[in-house]
Amino acid sequence: QGEVDERSMIFRMNGLEINTKDSSFYANFRFRMQNRMGFYTNGGDDLGISEWDARVRRLRLRADGYVLSPKIGYSIQLSFSRGDQDIDNTGIANIVRDAVVFYHFTNNFYIAFGQNKLPGNRQRVNSSGQLQFADRSIVNSTFTVDRDFGLKAYYNNTIGSVPFRIKGAISTGEGRSVNTTDNGLAYTGRFEILPFGEFKNEGDYSEGDLEREETPKLALAGGYSYNAKTNRTGGQLGKEMYASRDMGTAIFDMIFKLRGWAYETEYMKRTADNPLTFNEDGDVRYIYAGWGNNHQISYLFKNNLETAFRYSVIQPEGKTAWYEKRKEVLEAGVTKYLRKHRIKGQFNLSYNTEDGRWDLKDSDNYWGALFQIELGI
Amino acid sequence: QGEVDERSMIFRMNGLEINTKDSSFYANFRFRMQNRMGFYTNGGDDLGISEWDARVRRLRLRADGYVLSPKIGYSIQLSFSRGDQDIDNTGIANIVRDAVVFYHFTNNFYIAFGQNKLPGNRQRVNSSGQLQFADRSIVNSTFTVDRDFGLKAYYNNTIGSVPFRIKGAISTGEGRSVNTTDNGLAYTGRFEILPFGEFKNEGDYSEGDLEREETPKLALAGGYSYNAKTNRTGGQLGKEMYASRDMGTAIFDMIFKLRGWAYETEYMKRTADNPLTFNEDGDVRYIYAGWGNNHQISYLFKNNLETAFRYSVIQPEGKTAWYEKRKEVLEAGVTKYLRKHRIKGQFNLSYNTEDGRWDLKDSDNYWGALFQIELGI
Amino acid sequence: QGEVDERSMIFRMNGLEINTKDSSFYANFRFRMQNRMGFYTNGGDDLGISEWDARVRRLRLRADGYVLSPKIGYSIQLSFSRGDQDIDNTGIANIVRDAVVFYHFTNNFYIAFGQNKLPGNRQRVNSSGQLQFADRSIVNSTFTVDRDFGLKAYYNNTIGSVPFRIKGAISTGEGRSVNTTDNGLAYTGRFEILPFGEFKNEGDYSEGDLEREETPKLALAGGYSYNAKTNRTGGQLGKEMYASRDMGTAIFDMIFKLRGWAYETEYMKRTADNPLTFNEDGDVRYIYAGWGNNHQISYLFKNNLETAFRYSVIQPEGKTAWYEKRKEVLEAGVTKYLRKHRIKGQFNLSYNTEDGRWDLKDSDNYWGALFQIELGI
Repeated sequence: QGEVDERSMIFRMNGLEINTKDSSFYANFRFRMQNRMGFYTNGGDDLGISEWDARVRRLRLRADGYVLSPKIGYSIQLSFSRGDQDIDNTGIANIVRDAVVFYHFTNNFYIAFGQNKLPGNRQRVNSSGQLQFADRSIVNSTFTVDRDFGLKAYYNNTIGSVPFRIKGAISTGEGRSVNTTDNGLAYTGRFEILPFGEFKNEGDYSEGDLEREETPKLALAGGYSYNAKTNRTGGQLGKEMYASRDMGTAIFDMIFKLRGWAYETEYMKRTADNPLTFNEDGDVRYIYAGWGNNHQISYLFKNNLETAFRYSVIQPEGKTAWYEKRKEVLEAGVTKYLRKHRIKGQFNLSYNTEDGRWDLKDSDNYWGALFQIELGI
Repeated sequence: QGEVDERSMIFRMNGLEINTKDSSFYANFRFRMQNRMGFYTNGGDDLGISEWDARVRRLRLRADGYVLSPKIGYSIQLSFSRGDQDIDNTGIANIVRDAVVFYHFTNNFYIAFGQNKLPGNRQRVNSSGQLQFADRSIVNSTFTVDRDFGLKAYYNNTIGSVPFRIKGAISTGEGRSVNTTDNGLAYTGRFEILPFGEFKNEGDYSEGDLEREETPKLALAGGYSYNAKTNRTGGQLGKEMYASRDMGTAIFDMIFKLRGWAYETEYMKRTADNPLTFNEDGDVRYIYAGWGNNHQISYLFKNNLETAFRYSVIQPEGKTAWYEKRKEVLEAGVTKYLRKHRIKGQFNLSYNTEDGRWDLKDSDNYWGALFQIELGI
Repeated sequence: QGEVDERSMIFRMNGLEINTKDSSFYANFRFRMQNRMGFYTNGGDDLGISEWDARVRRLRLRADGYVLSPKIGYSIQLSFSRGDQDIDNTGIANIVRDAVVFYHFTNNFYIAFGQNKLPGNRQRVNSSGQLQFADRSIVNSTFTVDRDFGLKAYYNNTIGSVPFRIKGAISTGEGRSVNTTDNGLAYTGRFEILPFGEFKNEGDYSEGDLEREETPKLALAGGYSYNAKTNRTGGQLGKEMYASRDMGTAIFDMIFKLRGWAYETEYMKRTADNPLTFNEDGDVRYIYAGWGNNHQISYLFKNNLETAFRYSVIQPEGKTAWYEKRKEVLEAGVTKYLRKHRIKGQFNLSYNTEDGRWDLKDSDNYWGALFQIELGI
C-alpha cells in the first residue's frame, strides 16, 4: 500500500509494472491527481468569501524501479501543476521533484544520490498521497526542510525486537531550483525508534490507521538539520534572501496507532543568529525563527470513513516576532477512503486565529473550507 | 475515432491501453505532435516574408481511463510546447491542460470535477486534433471561454428520436494559471439538439465529414457564459487587466454533415459594462466587446483528400472599437487524412483584411501560408 | 546500443517497446537521469571551494517509433530539469527537445520535419547519453549550432566500400524557444566519410570504443552553417542580442577507434561581420567570433573501466577579443560502464586556464572536480 518517499518502491508492487524479459530492469509507473475546491471567509463572523482555492493542486507522475539488479534502485517523480513547482518563489518551474539513484549495500543499509526528500519531519516525509488532511499543517509549511540534492544514507536494525533507524544527509541546502550553489552545504541527521515493533505496511509514514493495527504501534523520532549559508528564507524553500544565513532546525515527532485510532504530533524549532536580511531599499526578507507544534488525532470507522482533528500553532521568536504573529489553526476533517489513500474524498473545515485571540469578532480570524478528491494509481 | 474533450474516452478504445488484472483500472495513453512551417507576407501585394511561423505547435500527452469501476473516470492532458502553455500571457508554463475526475450517475448524466474545457463554442470544444484547418478561427481566439477549473454537469436524453444535451458549469473564471482566485466565479450553460439523430462516431465534435454520413446530420446549439469579476482580458484567457470586470459571452453554433460535405458556423457575442481598464501610466488593457461569425465548408474526396473554405469576421463594438478594427479572414485549406485526424498533412492559405477593405494594395492586408503535419496515436 | 539523435530508433530495439496488434504502430520508451556532485576551487593553488555543482543535470523522457509503416518515423524527447531547458537564457522552460517526423523515401534517403539537432559538430550530435566526459567541451558550448526547427535531409551511400553521408537543413535559426521568427533562416550542410567502413553499432556517434573495434575505424567530416539575421548570441542558443546579425560556423571533426582506443577531435570557427550589439545604456551582447579546438583520447580496459584525457582551447578573434580571453582546459576522466553508456559512473578532474598562462598561482585559473552517475533504460 504505502508510498514511501525515501526509497524506491521495488518490493511492493502497485501501479503499472513493466519488466524486461531478462529481469534486468523493473519499472513501476504511477500518477496522482488532487483536485480541490474551497474558500476562505472574510472573518470569523463575516462568512462572506474572500478567496477561492479551486484548482488542480497536484498532478504527478512517478516511476520507481531498478536496473541491472534490485541493488540499484531509482525513483523519479515529476510535478506538473503550478502550485507544485515552487514557481511563485523561484520563478523556475521545478518539474523534477525526485530524481534519485539508490544503492543497497545490504538489507539494512542503503544510500541515495540525487534529489529527494531530506530525512526531516514525519509529516513532510509522508508522501502527499498519504495525508489525512488536504494540506500539511502550518508547522510543516513554516519549518520543514523539504527536498534537497545530495547524498543520503539510511541504516536500520533492531535492538532486541525494537526496530530503529538512522538517517543522514549532506545536501546543497538550496533546494530544488538551483543550478550551482555556494560553498555552504546542509547536514541533516535523524533517529527513529519503534518500541512496539514495525507498523503494518510501513504505516509509520502514512496518516490515519488504515491498516487497523491490532496491537499498539508507536514511532518516536528526533533530528536536526544545519544549513550553512543558505540563500532562501526557508533554507531549501522560500524566496531568495538579500544575504546568506546559517540556520538550524530541530525536529521531534511521534505517531501512535491502534484499532483505527491514530495520533501524530510534531514539534519543530528553527534558530538563526541573525534571521533578518535587508536590501538597499530597506525591504526585509527573513528566516522564520521560532517554534511550532502540531497534533492530529483520527478514528477510522468500519466503512472507511475517517474523522480527524488537528491543532497547530506556530510562534515566532526574537527579531522574527517583529514581522510575524503567533498563529493557531483548529481543523476538523472527514475523509472517505475508496481505495486506501489512492482514491479518496476529503472535506476539511478550519478556524484560523492570530496572536492567541480566538474571538469570532477578531478581525484577523477567518474560516476555511475545502473539498478535495484524490485519484491515483 | 473521436477524441472528445468533455469526457474520458473509456468506451472507445484507441492508443495504448492498459488494464489491471482485476479490471479495477483502465488507462488509455496517447500523444499528439503538430509541426508546422509557414509565413506571413508584408502585404497583400508585397509577397516578401515578414515573419515565419515554424515550430512544434503542439506536443501533448493524454491519459484517459477509470478507476474502481467505469463510473469513476478520469482524463489527464499535458502540453509541453511553449505556444500551448499560455506562458506568453501569464508568465507561467501551464503544462496541465486537463485534469478531471468524472462520475457517471447514469448513462444519461455525469459530472466532472477539475480542469477541462467549459461547454463553450463548438470549435473550441473540438479537440485540436479534430480540426480541418491548422488553427481555429479568429472568432474562437477572440471570444472563446476555453478551459476552466470547476464543477461541470452533462445531461443527455432524447425527445422522441431527437437527441438533446444540457451542459452546465460553475468554475473559477480565471482559467488555467491561477493558484487562488477572487470571489467572482463563472457560470456557463449550453443546450444542444440533433434533429436528425446522432452523428456517426460523435462527429458533431469533429470537423470534416470523415465518416461520410449517408443521411443528413445536424447539430444546433446555444449557450451563455457569465464571468463575474474576471481579471483577464478574455475571461479565462488573455493578459491580466488592471481591474476586474464582469463579462458575458453568448454563443450560437451549428454543424451539418452529409456524404463528405460538412458545414459549420458559429456566432459569438461578448458584452461588458465597461470593457476598458487603465493603470496609473495610462496603459490600457480591455475586454474585446463585440461579435464574431465563422463559416466553414468542406468536401472530402474518395481518396481522403479534403478541400475546405472558411470566412471569419470579428467586429468590435462600443469602447473596444477605439482600439480594435473589424477583421476578416478568407482561408482555403487542403488536408490529406492518412489515418483520419490522427495522421494528416494540411496546407492552408489565408488572406487577412482590416476595416472591411479588401484591396490587395491596402497596407494592413496580408497573406498567410502554412503547412502542418499532425502525428498522433 | 546506440542512441542516435538524427533519426528515430526504430530498427534497434531497446527500452520499453509497444506494438499495436496490427503492426501499424511502434513505440520505444526511454528515460535517462544524470545526477552529479562536483565543485570548483577558488584558484589553482587555493583549493577552497568557490561553488558546488550538485544537481539533477538531466532528466529526460524519450519516445521513438513509427506509425502506419516504418517509413513514417517519429522521435520525441522531453527534458524536465532546469539546466536542460535553456531557461536561464530565454526565460522559457523549453521542455520539448525533439519533436520530429521522419519520412524514409528509401534506405538511403530520408527527411525530417520538426525540431531536432542540426547536422553540426560531432560531439553535439552525439546524444548526451553517449559522452565519455560528464559535459561536452568548451569548444562545443561556445560554437555549437545545436537544435533547431526546420526541414532536414539525410542521404547516405558508398563509394566502393567507403560509406559517405550528406546532410542538409533549412531551419529557423532561432533555436528551441521561439514562437515566430523573423525572415532570416539558417542553412546547414555537412559531409561525412568513413574510409575504413562503418563503425560497429554506429559508434561514430558514440564516445569511447565500447565496441572494441577489431580493425581501425575512422570518420572524417566537414560542414558549414550560415545563420541569417539571428537574434541570439549563439545563433540557436544564448541570450537575445540587441540587434540581429548574420553568422557563419565552419566545422571539421574526426573520430578514430581501434581495440578500446578512441581519439576524437573537432575544430570550429565562427565568423560575423560585426559581432557586437549594444543597447541604449551601452550594454553589450555579442557573438563569440573566433575558433576552438578539442582533442580527446581514451582507452577502455577489459573490465569496462575507461580512462580519458581532453585538451580544449577557445580563442576569440577580432572585436570579440575585447571581451573574451583565450581559455584552455585540461581534463582527465575515469568512467566505469555498467551497461555501456546507459548505466555508468564518471569522475572528471579539470584544470582551467586563461590567456595561455598555466601557472597555478595565476588568479584566473582553477580546478574542477565532478562525479556523475547516469542511469537510463
